[in-house]
Amino acid sequence: FPLVAREEKPRTQGLTMIIDKGLGIRETKDLLELATSYIDFWKLSFGTSALYPREILKKKIKLIKSYEIDIYPGGTFLEIAINQNKTSEYLNEAKELGFTAVEVSDGTLSLPISLRSNIIKQAKSLGFKVLTEIGKKDKNKEFKVNQMIKQLKKDVIDGADKIIVEARESGTGVSIYDQQGQADQFMLKKILLEAPNHNDIIWETPLKKQQVYFIRLLGNNVNLGNIDPREILALESLRNGLRGDTFKTI
Amino acid sequence: FPLVAREEKPRTQGLTMIIDKGLGIRETKDLLELATSYIDFWKLSFGTSALYPREILKKKIKLIKSYEIDIYPGGTFLEIAINQNKTSEYLNEAKELGFTAVEVSDGTLSLPISLRSNIIKQAKSLGFKVLTEIGKKDKNKEFKVNQMIKQLKKDVIDGADKIIVEARESGTGVSIYDQQGQADQFMLKKILLEAPNHNDIIWETPLKKQQVYFIRLLGNNVNLGNIDPREILALESLRNGLRGDTFKTI
Amino acid sequence: FPLVAREEKPRTQGLTMIIDKGLGIRETKDLLELATSYIDFWKLSFGTSALYPREILKKKIKLIKSYEIDIYPGGTFLEIAINQNKTSEYLNEAKELGFTAVEVSDGTLSLPISLRSNIIKQAKSLGFKVLTEIGKKDKNKEFKVNQMIKQLKKDVIDGADKIIVEARESGTGVSIYDQQGQADQFMLKKILLEAPNHNDIIWETPLKKQQVYFIRLLGNNVNLGNIDPREILALESLRNGLRGDTFKTI
Repeated sequence: FPLVAREEKPRTQGLTMIIDKGLGIRETKDLLELATSYIDFWKLSFGTSALYPREILKKKIKLIKSYEIDIYPGGTFLEIAINQNKTSEYLNEAKELGFTAVEVSDGTLSLPISLRSNIIKQAKSLGFKVLTEIGKKDKNKEFKVNQMIKQLKKDVIDGADKIIVEARESGTGVSIYDQQGQADQFMLKKILLEAPNHNDIIWETPLKKQQVYFIRLLGNNVNLGNIDPREILALESLRNGLRGDTFKTI
Repeated sequence: FPLVAREEKPRTQGLTMIIDKGLGIRETKDLLELATSYIDFWKLSFGTSALYPREILKKKIKLIKSYEIDIYPGGTFLEIAINQNKTSEYLNEAKELGFTAVEVSDGTLSLPISLRSNIIKQAKSLGFKVLTEIGKKDKNKEFKVNQMIKQLKKDVIDGADKIIVEARESGTGVSIYDQQGQADQFMLKKILLEAPNHNDIIWETPLKKQQVYFIRLLGNNVNLGNIDPREILALESLRNGLRGDTFKTI
Repeated sequence: FPLVAREEKPRTQGLTMIIDKGLGIRETKDLLELATSYIDFWKLSFGTSALYPREILKKKIKLIKSYEIDIYPGGTFLEIAINQNKTSEYLNEAKELGFTAVEVSDGTLSLPISLRSNIIKQAKSLGFKVLTEIGKKDKNKEFKVNQMIKQLKKDVIDGADKIIVEARESGTGVSIYDQQGQADQFMLKKILLEAPNHNDIIWETPLKKQQVYFIRLLGNNVNLGNIDPREILALESLRNGLRGDTFKTI
């Protein structure tokens, strides 16, 4: 049965990033055997990578890398390192552990533009893919959409590989999302209008309704992130019109 | 400690159908070792079976069958095949892969009655168990309860083994359920009154409150479906009065 | 990167109790390899332990014990035994299976104070750790906070190792929690004021917002229970300020 056109990995669009809150080795193997074709980026959420036994972490990273998937620690971890003036140590340690990418965010801290710029360049020079995040975690300090766009453009110039529009794990009350997880139309349109290349963006869409929304809006090859690993085939079904929600529209 | 009377497998009532959105081989083994006695039907949800690597899929089907559990692909997949005039190819492929049952639904498409009837008979003649589904997925085209009952009776005559009352994965806003997942009393009573045999019906009850509701209403040996595999022991606790919610009532 | 001070196991504070609704052997191994340092108590929820194949159950208990984690069956199971006048048989069977602790609750039944007291002492004399639970499951029969406090004090005197403030699996509409899962300020303050030792208490906090609330209120070494095994690293991230929610406060 013919599926909707999806590029083979490594692909340039239709990227999927999963958020891993602590899968063990066997569960990781299960997921890789089943769904490696559908996963492009693998995020170890928040600071969880600091909590793994070191040997298990290295084993897991090595395993995931062997399936041509980029793996990186959650951005909060780097924010802590920046806060402790230990950015270089952080990047070296990430390299040593085998991570292939890093996330530069300021969800919790305020990060001066020049420092953000330097960190992106430093990470790139060390051979990492760099994903940056726009849209603050703290609702009250929420980036205005103009600031998000400005940051997006600057990050692209500084060499970021992808820009992630933040949704947290919950998908609600942050960046473009309201308390019900609905995307703000004004902010969304403005970002789409001004972004140099839609394909630079990964939209965090932890909720199914957000996944359906973006696939309907931007097509089955939109880049989506913060996907629950247990929903990876469900998402791919949506992308391929194999599920009622997108059956009629694709 | 004596449990509430539950038939051994293969049983004629108290059937449980799980919805599997992508369990890997090891997790499947874990579940079978632990809970095979409590699982009668195993559904690979939506079109996920089209997304498995073929060898993994065959291995998984073979494994599940060896535990005396019927396994079948989600109905959306057959709807797509019907839409492409490939019903026979679909059934042959399902046979080749090792599936023991198929689901005939029209959650997304409109399916002429005579065609539905023919597909049921064709699948039966190929040796499949047939589960049919009543109650449309699209809220606005929702089957009226009379149409659901008419379809139920017709499906039984055509040879369907079980009739599933649809609830989607979410359990809300479809067939007999409102947006909060509460069953409509009028529709429910009418179905119970007119169904030739209550035991023909599997009630999709993805939400715990729905499971509690039907166990209290129809007893611990009611047929329930769309159960999250990770909730299978929790459901069996409910059936056996081993959990507060049904402790007093059984 | 220095983590917030957390004691090594066996620790006297900052205890975490997980609620296991049916993890298989492989998934249990995964969790133990990854997170054994962060788990102190392992509860097999409701009556699920009655539903395991006996050999699998013994194997699982043995495995968990080998990682210095206390393991016990959910309290509902003992309530059923009490209801059938089979307390001694229950305790002997728990011993035989290898459980190291038991939970004494009256979430569903009404348990006379003297009987509760006797059961605690009986379990202690058999070498079990004893966890008792306060706060009824049935909302309408909810323990008044004064009764909860009275019970707490009595249980400590009777030899209970820890007192659990009930939240069910859902975290809502029970003991100190309202329908939204918010802790009642009056009840909470009163318990904190009157409890002989805060460290005697394990707070059931199945919802993330409850975990954040108690960590902010009582510090990163508060005892927390009813944690989803899949959230164990997420919780430990909260305890260690490795996640946005507690980043600024620790």
